[in-house]
Amino acid sequence: MEKLPTLELLIDYLKRLPSVGQKSAERMAYALLSMDEDVLGGFSKVLVEVKKKVHQCPICGLYTEKETCGICADKDRNSDTVIVISYPKDVYSFSALDEFSGRFHVLNGVISATNNITPDQLNIDSLFSRIEKENIKELILATNPTLEGETTALYLAKRLEKYNVKVTRIAYGLPLGAQIDYIDSLTLYKALENRRSIKRED
Amino acid sequence: MEKLPTLELLIDYLKRLPSVGQKSAERMAYALLSMDEDVLGGFSKVLVEVKKKVHQCPICGLYTEKETCGICADKDRNSDTVIVISYPKDVYSFSALDEFSGRFHVLNGVISATNNITPDQLNIDSLFSRIEKENIKELILATNPTLEGETTALYLAKRLEKYNVKVTRIAYGLPLGAQIDYIDSLTLYKALENRRSIKRED
Repeated sequence: MEKLPTLELLIDYLKRLPSVGQKSAERMAYALLSMDEDVLGGFSKVLVEVKKKVHQCPICGLYTEKETCGICADKDRNSDTVIVISYPKDVYSFSALDEFSGRFHVLNGVISATNNITPDQLNIDSLFSRIEKENIKELILATNPTLEGETTALYLAKRLEKYNVKVTRIAYGLPLGAQIDYIDSLTLYKALENRRSIKRED
Repeated sequence: MEKLPTLELLIDYLKRLPSVGQKSAERMAYALLSMDEDVLGGFSKVLVEVKKKVHQCPICGLYTEKETCGICADKDRNSDTVIVISYPKDVYSFSALDEFSGRFHVLNGVISATNNITPDQLNIDSLFSRIEKENIKELILATNPTLEGETTALYLAKRLEKYNVKVTRIAYGLPLGAQIDYIDSLTLYKALENRRSIKRED
């Protein structure tokens, strides 16, 4: 069988995308081959441009194409509450909530023994300077409820003790719409542990 | 929330890939943003190059980066049997079979009323000229066992009647490892209809 080096190179690049294996990459490569040249040209161009245009906000670490991000630049948002997230993309879940009008801080990762990520590689020092400068009253630690996310939250909470700021962790429990018989036991345990009394309105 | 036009353009291009929706495209875009510039540069380059380097073989329609494809150029393969496939990528399933040492012919599609594809848009005329020129003895029609693949196979069989060539269709039946209680009734019907007598070796 003839080797197709250019096609195989394209497949190799496609396999670097998350959850794309050999078969999907092949299907994608064939789909790309049958697209118009100007579509491929546009795709090709934006792949290089995205890295030049999109960068992290120097204050909070969110992605922006301006000098500072839209949230940091927005004077109407309050600076009292800051949600601390692991990755820039996590912001989209929170910013869809109209209820939250505070700001964000991106750590750019989580402490991880397996991936050799130590606290000094995370965007933590700038968080400390923001607390004083922006007069932050509450930090909500919203790293993922995983081993590494937990470790990072606990580490941060410890380091934040000396600051005059309230530190909270987003709640664990049942996701809405979940079926109790399908939920894992650790989540169920946390949901029991964090149970709340139902307030009677009368 | 700030709009990120370059990032959104990238997401739009990623959504053109097969089975990539909004969420996957976003995840891919963020993964791309965190890749090195030279990886993105290489990816960008191959996207444009693939269309220039990879083309269809003028004889059989398979993808090649040379003048004619490796199979057509291979003098050791026999010309007696030609497998007729709908798309170039289908060849990989067959060429993995060591048992087959014949050649291929790509139709570049199937007859389809819904997609408005008529027989004259398919790579059929060149098949007729190959039959005479290459002295082909058997054509195995290997379009997909779908309505459109069937229509195409029947149409081809009809048009091939006047040629002195054996025309066969790949077999329908149970895929190996299948569970009969999970198989659809049409496949099971075909498997019964095409039953073969078990030869006793003694």
